[in-house]
Amino acid sequence: MEKYYFTYNDIHRTVRSLAERVVQTGFAPDLTVAIGTGGFIPARMLKTFLKKPILAVGIAYYDDQNRATEYPHTIQWIDEAQRKIRGKKILLIDEVDDSRVTLEYCIRELLRHEPAEIAVAVLHNKKKEKRGSIPPEVKIYLAGADLEDKWVCYPWDAIDIDAQEASAAGK
Amino acid sequence: MEKYYFTYNDIHRTVRSLAERVVQTGFAPDLTVAIGTGGFIPARMLKTFLKKPILAVGIAYYDDQNRATEYPHTIQWIDEAQRKIRGKKILLIDEVDDSRVTLEYCIRELLRHEPAEIAVAVLHNKKKEKRGSIPPEVKIYLAGADLEDKWVCYPWDAIDIDAQEASAAGK
Repeated sequence: MEKYYFTYNDIHRTVRSLAERVVQTGFAPDLTVAIGTGGFIPARMLKTFLKKPILAVGIAYYDDQNRATEYPHTIQWIDEAQRKIRGKKILLIDEVDDSRVTLEYCIRELLRHEPAEIAVAVLHNKKKEKRGSIPPEVKIYLAGADLEDKWVCYPWDAIDIDAQEASAAGK
Repeated sequence: MEKYYFTYNDIHRTVRSLAERVVQTGFAPDLTVAIGTGGFIPARMLKTFLKKPILAVGIAYYDDQNRATEYPHTIQWIDEAQRKIRGKKILLIDEVDDSRVTLEYCIRELLRHEPAEIAVAVLHNKKKEKRGSIPPEVKIYLAGADLEDKWVCYPWDAIDIDAQEASAAGK
């Protein structure tokens, strides 16, 4: 298989399992922070199981002229919500831990606002050499599954959702 | 049928159709604003078709003590992004137009930041008497479907996604 294909229902089941594992760790988040735009759908699914508010942050690797940038930067941050982070237990959500650069960037931004604790949950972790690292303040890191370093096709990126289903079923 | 049940793939197809209708109107948004948390998943799906950045706003009907409030208020707003709204064409996204109060609230908040234009797209509009109204500045309002005033079960609220599929299939 050259690429991974997931259906929405696959993702929903992975999120449910992640939610159960979060509960098992004993970590009780006050709120989740969703890294946009890949984290929006997993974060909304997770809300059904953990029932915590979602703060959304936008992270981009392109500039205003749509040119690629080497490092991530914020396109939406949570100025108004900073007071909601201080002293709180944050569960940070994204779809995939690829190079780990985005995750490290987000964690470091969140740490500046002095949360009580940060845990990280991603749908998928790619087994590869990472350019970024998880800061030591983060004690809990959960991945729904470890994947080989192949292209991942998420259902929300599909133009034709029926073709996505067929590919995910190996047809 | 007492309730409506939708699968993720139903929603994905509705979003695709909505995207096509947005294009047909000639309205070319600079960015989308997703009303959280119901609008997060439709907005992320829509991004695949319209390829515009998403700003997320959180709207709640409960206060810090989790008590119900009669009117919506913001739990995350887009302070940093206000300059991104001014003079821009905004497509506002939510999952359902129920009482229309949330939509009106969001539109009025957005209008304060002087966008060039606002269009509204919702997955579903409930045919009922509305407590809120769409301000006259909004020239384009699109709903993926009009529904009777029944409870709508969205897939992201399902604990058991297989049961949701079965209910949606009428089993």
